[in-house]
Amino acid sequence: MITVTRLDCMDARALIAGARAKADEIGVPMCIAITDESGNLIAFERMDGGKVTSSTIAIDKSFTASAAKKATHEYGAASQPGAPAYGIASAIHGRLMVVGGGLPVIVGGEVVGGIGVSSGTPAQDTEVAQAGIDGFLANM
Amino acid sequence: MITVTRLDCMDARALIAGARAKADEIGVPMCIAITDESGNLIAFERMDGGKVTSSTIAIDKSFTASAAKKATHEYGAASQPGAPAYGIASAIHGRLMVVGGGLPVIVGGEVVGGIGVSSGTPAQDTEVAQAGIDGFLANM
Amino acid sequence: MITVTRLDCMDARALIAGARAKADEIGVPMCIAITDESGNLIAFERMDGGKVTSSTIAIDKSFTASAAKKATHEYGAASQPGAPAYGIASAIHGRLMVVGGGLPVIVGGEVVGGIGVSSGTPAQDTEVAQAGIDGFLANM
Amino acid sequence: MITVTRLDCMDARALIAGARAKADEIGVPMCIAITDESGNLIAFERMDGGKVTSSTIAIDKSFTASAAKKATHEYGAASQPGAPAYGIASAIHGRLMVVGGGLPVIVGGEVVGGIGVSSGTPAQDTEVAQAGIDGFLANM
Repeated sequence: MITVTRLDCMDARALIAGARAKADEIGVPMCIAITDESGNLIAFERMDGGKVTSSTIAIDKSFTASAAKKATHEYGAASQPGAPAYGIASAIHGRLMVVGGGLPVIVGGEVVGGIGVSSGTPAQDTEVAQAGIDGFLANM
Repeated sequence: MITVTRLDCMDARALIAGARAKADEIGVPMCIAITDESGNLIAFERMDGGKVTSSTIAIDKSFTASAAKKATHEYGAASQPGAPAYGIASAIHGRLMVVGGGLPVIVGGEVVGGIGVSSGTPAQDTEVAQAGIDGFLANM
Repeated sequence: MITVTRLDCMDARALIAGARAKADEIGVPMCIAITDESGNLIAFERMDGGKVTSSTIAIDKSFTASAAKKATHEYGAASQPGAPAYGIASAIHGRLMVVGGGLPVIVGGEVVGGIGVSSGTPAQDTEVAQAGIDGFLANM
Repeated sequence: MITVTRLDCMDARALIAGARAKADEIGVPMCIAITDESGNLIAFERMDGGKVTSSTIAIDKSFTASAAKKATHEYGAASQPGAPAYGIASAIHGRLMVVGGGLPVIVGGEVVGGIGVSSGTPAQDTEVAQAGIDGFLANM
């Protein structure tokens, strides 16, 4: 038998709060998704003005980061033409995201969940996701 | 051009808060989804203990209630064997939900969004969804 | 080699015009889809106020009626519990519609396309689809 | 609550009319789709000779342009190998289109919908989509 540690719903809210604060600061309304260590959705918010297309993308970035235990931008590098993971972007019916904005949430060396952000540039999405993690870890 | 009014993200939080309070009261952790008047997701929470399967079901109940402007349990009655809408449950790749727990959110006679709840019995899900709406309307 | 006769785009407009007139008459804004004899979409309109969920449903009703050469309400009867086609509603990833509102368009004894209507009751949807066909045939 | 302005069905017809005129002029029968600001289909026409594959592509180009508020060819540039959004093309089950031919429809600085065109080269598709917008704006 295995015991796993994962984010709970209040943790998810804290992650979203940190991400929203950064999104407000940079002036880009975002879609923000939080998943548990199994990749399943815990919480989601589309800020007013966030893109409809980004709802699914944020959820899938968080799914990828938590369930594959890897930041989505790392998959971006690994899946370029000629690179070992080339073509992985269309895996799992297109749910495996290789665009930046998805980060695993790591506590005590273990992946306990993920955060996915979408509506800005991939760099902005990643910055906002990281701010969510930073805020969460600072207040644990 | 058409002008439409829809829920914003803070409205979505108020709907979730009302639903959570009722879910706590009856002791059933729920998945709760809020969509805008076009059926697109605004916010979602899976309470600790809410069912993983219910994430998609709650989202699709809310999608159905808002975009079809009808409570999902009404589709349940209309789609029984021999009834006019029999078979509608598998429409839209199975996203059209006919199980209770999805309600349109109506303000000033217009559907401005929807709420979908899942993890309990359909009666419990509907009760919790209605509590979300009641709480939201009471504090508008 | 086979030669087929099918609706063209102007025929599709005529079918939509006849359906819209009836929809206006009964006061139910509808989604209206026209497909060719192969089931592929030629034209579609969502009248102002038509349901978002009904876009896919109208297209799939027309797909079913034209490609299966059978009115969707006939599938409704044939797919009741205990009837020979029970369960067919979930075929083709849920695209095979068994709810009334999809009719084949027949010219000279041949199915040349289909019309699918959704947003009202199945009886209203079927009435509006038939009005589309009647208007089209009267002006050929 | 949020108030949004979106295209209505007559606006959609005007957009299609402008696009058809250009398609006729360049001699390429097109599939033309119009969506509202949430990405949901309002109207569609496959001109006689338009490609069957292009029906879905036109709808998804319009969905992308309206719901992501960005021209699809911009995603094409941003998603080249080595570029930040590389891999985005397979997102949303492949619905996010990065091939030219999808444009947001902007009125008063707000995205009120989108137009998607397919059957020609991406350059032709974009030209026809732009002609639809130009015709619509000229006659508002």
